[in-house]
Amino acid sequence: MTTVALVDWGTSSFRLWLIDRSGAVLAERRSEEGMSTLAPDRFEPVLRAHLSALDPAVRPVRVVICGMAGARQGWREAPYRPVPVALDALPEAAICVPAADLDVRILPGLSVPDRDAPDVLRGEETQLLGLALEDPALDGLVAMPGTHTKWVRLEKGVVRGFSTVMTGELFALLSRESLLRHTIGDCRPSGDPESPAFTAGLAAALAAPARLTGLLFGIRAGGLLHGATGVPAADRLSGLMIGADVAGALHDTPMDVPVILVASGGLADAYAAALACAGRTVRRVEADDAVRRGLTHAAGRIWPA
Amino acid sequence: MTTVALVDWGTSSFRLWLIDRSGAVLAERRSEEGMSTLAPDRFEPVLRAHLSALDPAVRPVRVVICGMAGARQGWREAPYRPVPVALDALPEAAICVPAADLDVRILPGLSVPDRDAPDVLRGEETQLLGLALEDPALDGLVAMPGTHTKWVRLEKGVVRGFSTVMTGELFALLSRESLLRHTIGDCRPSGDPESPAFTAGLAAALAAPARLTGLLFGIRAGGLLHGATGVPAADRLSGLMIGADVAGALHDTPMDVPVILVASGGLADAYAAALACAGRTVRRVEADDAVRRGLTHAAGRIWPA
Repeated sequence: MTTVALVDWGTSSFRLWLIDRSGAVLAERRSEEGMSTLAPDRFEPVLRAHLSALDPAVRPVRVVICGMAGARQGWREAPYRPVPVALDALPEAAICVPAADLDVRILPGLSVPDRDAPDVLRGEETQLLGLALEDPALDGLVAMPGTHTKWVRLEKGVVRGFSTVMTGELFALLSRESLLRHTIGDCRPSGDPESPAFTAGLAAALAAPARLTGLLFGIRAGGLLHGATGVPAADRLSGLMIGADVAGALHDTPMDVPVILVASGGLADAYAAALACAGRTVRRVEADDAVRRGLTHAAGRIWPA
Repeated sequence: MTTVALVDWGTSSFRLWLIDRSGAVLAERRSEEGMSTLAPDRFEPVLRAHLSALDPAVRPVRVVICGMAGARQGWREAPYRPVPVALDALPEAAICVPAADLDVRILPGLSVPDRDAPDVLRGEETQLLGLALEDPALDGLVAMPGTHTKWVRLEKGVVRGFSTVMTGELFALLSRESLLRHTIGDCRPSGDPESPAFTAGLAAALAAPARLTGLLFGIRAGGLLHGATGVPAADRLSGLMIGADVAGALHDTPMDVPVILVASGGLADAYAAALACAGRTVRRVEADDAVRRGLTHAAGRIWPA
């Protein structure tokens, strides 16, 4: 049976789905073997180890990959495609990776080559492809939260532009490495999008996003003066960072532009709350579904029946 | 001869001036023995070691201290005074520290007890006292840049309010610990307030301070797409952080409110450039002079002739 392995290979995670000709998922594998843990010559052995663990009767020769495996510091560079980009053209732009008995392709990332506001992404283009396949007429702003949140202007299958906000990374740095660690301690946010500290942080940042760096110190002062430490302090920091992220992205987005939230789990809930607080209604799409749909389509285009 | 030791004891530094009755400086000492390096029981031995190094003929018994030595994690807590605060009342609020044959006083810091925008400072109140002594009619916004930049509303010797922005700390975290370290490497900013990358960063952040967290990722993308790495990337980050700081602080400050910049060295030049870029003319005051003047005045009030 001809099968294909679909791989979403990010900075901190590896994920594989084994599909058959019809697109049905036969097996799934996950690990923490992301780009940040691998030297370039380790990608192939890691991939082969995952393939070897599959049932030999359905073990694939064909592998299509998206994400950081195509970065300069990844397995092999799949050069960025500058916007505007028709997502439908991405499968043809996949690079071939020499790998003996395997047929490995890596999908390219996207770039905004603008000198004043350069930007790049890898992996999200495949989620966007999945989203556009599901709704070819979609014309809106796509929020893709994460370590580096992406805000993408998608118009009928074409990516017009995008911008990246380092929200998740800044949250981690501030809570663990800055002065605020004394106030937050080892606590993680509650994950409750209705917690008073989270919603107060959202409201404060949405009302004055330009004052974000000033609002941050208020967490320290609130701990010293009012005993607001631990989980509520972590929740407030989360609310401030996500509120500022959303405020910055919506700043020049007219109210009649639909917002689509591509995310999973708690992060999806937190951004949905922030977008609601900013007066936007959102459509939610599961990120895992979107990337698998995009990879499945790419496989069908690369290896037509 | 009756002499007094004036001490500015911060998070990362110790500074002592020995003055006589007239206020003339007889000796000066500096070290890196800031609060962050000292357990509470180490402050007294460190102070005694510095006093022992002075000429016995002029060795002081009286010591007046401002800064983090008065923090909860410092030598002994000098409780915050809530704004509004008449700076002239601070010397009377100094606490006495029991220390055998020495007469040690620590000046209090200030707080904004507001639940929605709490804030604290320590050390800057003494610089502000020095500033107000020099110009009692001063009515304006005082910029005090540093690891934690303070923006203070001073009105004829009374502190009406203030806010803290974690600019210096965020710069250090972003350049050394975030993804941007790959773009900046081990480079430090040029320190040239006219460098093109610094001024471009200033202009971008002043034009769209709400988009700061998005502008930051542009440094990474600019390195990947256009080879903008090293010192220019550090300069751009510095410009973005200082520009966002200034934009946030000036946001609700009418153009007719004078801005006074209390700072030293390269930081003073960088903020002067940012304030000029924001269309403000500033008066510059040397931070060291201001704190010494404030401490000298406090000593005269605590121990009148």
